[in-house]
Amino acid sequence: MSTIQTPIPEKTIERLSEYRRTLIACHKRGITHVFSHILAGMHGITAVQVRRDLMLIGFSSDTKKGYDVKILIDFIDSILYSENTMNVAVLGMGNLGQAITRYFNSKQLNIRITAAFDISEEKAGHTIMDIPCYHIDNFEEVVAANDISIVIISLPSSLAAQYAVPIINAGIKGVLNFTSVPMNFPQGIVVENYDITTILEKVAYFVKAAEENNNQ
Amino acid sequence: MSTIQTPIPEKTIERLSEYRRTLIACHKRGITHVFSHILAGMHGITAVQVRRDLMLIGFSSDTKKGYDVKILIDFIDSILYSENTMNVAVLGMGNLGQAITRYFNSKQLNIRITAAFDISEEKAGHTIMDIPCYHIDNFEEVVAANDISIVIISLPSSLAAQYAVPIINAGIKGVLNFTSVPMNFPQGIVVENYDITTILEKVAYFVKAAEENNNQ
Repeated sequence: MSTIQTPIPEKTIERLSEYRRTLIACHKRGITHVFSHILAGMHGITAVQVRRDLMLIGFSSDTKKGYDVKILIDFIDSILYSENTMNVAVLGMGNLGQAITRYFNSKQLNIRITAAFDISEEKAGHTIMDIPCYHIDNFEEVVAANDISIVIISLPSSLAAQYAVPIINAGIKGVLNFTSVPMNFPQGIVVENYDITTILEKVAYFVKAAEENNNQ
Repeated sequence: MSTIQTPIPEKTIERLSEYRRTLIACHKRGITHVFSHILAGMHGITAVQVRRDLMLIGFSSDTKKGYDVKILIDFIDSILYSENTMNVAVLGMGNLGQAITRYFNSKQLNIRITAAFDISEEKAGHTIMDIPCYHIDNFEEVVAANDISIVIISLPSSLAAQYAVPIINAGIKGVLNFTSVPMNFPQGIVVENYDITTILEKVAYFVKAAEENNNQ
């Protein structure tokens, strides 16, 4: 597989991940080929967008029958995933941490949640949803011993900031922060601040705007 | 408060929601004024972006002391929120549904989760995290009786599609879909498909890309 030299835009990466899941669902239902406009329709976007995304990763289609589903899945896999599984740790094993763990580890991803951390003495030292849960004070040692490169932060927002330095010291390369406190890291650490409140507020705003439009 | 006539871009709405939470945190700590570059730094963006967003909603600053924190919070509130509380229902009261409910309802939002639905007979008919949980078969009646305008879908992905028609029939105006199956709705219904797997895969991709760059 040749290496892609140009960086792929973030939004394209997001859509590739989404196409992949749709394609896997198609594959399971015995669908072997799919046209760009069908794939586009399933995602509420245009066929031009789908073709542009796939062109960006160097994939072209058999236009008579559409894209070969299996080949396209493998191709996207080669772009999105390392050959090695990436180990992820969850910081904060409350409801959200447990929901995330159950959710991710039930999927066939090349990214696995392999460790959890919590401040609670009740959780630390136990296995929760088949993964070991450690006390957060041991964060740096456990990360080093278990080749963890990404952390998901599902701690209470008020606690998150104090773990920025341990995360940096442990050599973590990617952070997915679900708290409502945005976290900044030095260059070289990939960060996604991903507060779900923001998205609910956005939906609410556009619902309100539509209602106001209708009332005018 | 005058009505904003031009539509505000989605990304600006997201950032306003984020600024608002940071400003509330500042306000609680007794900070009365904040400069645009400070607010920008807290969010990892440029001061120009902050000023542009606030200009879009018609807010201007006292440049000597920075923005007045309390006034700016109230101003953003007037843009983001209706005067009336918006009622939200959660479809699917598993770990993720419960995590979302706890998370949102612990915040001082003008958007409240006021009802939950589940397919499990064990959950339906009970109160979970202080909100009533109904059987999903009663969705349309409960929505009508409780003035619910937004639903959050945290069902297993395989179940989500069958609830598109009830959601339309019930007159729901906004959908926040956390499953991995994108849902499409007729125009007039605001939809955010928000699969958290996508974001983890994106972080993993950029971590991988950075590693490959370092190895070259």
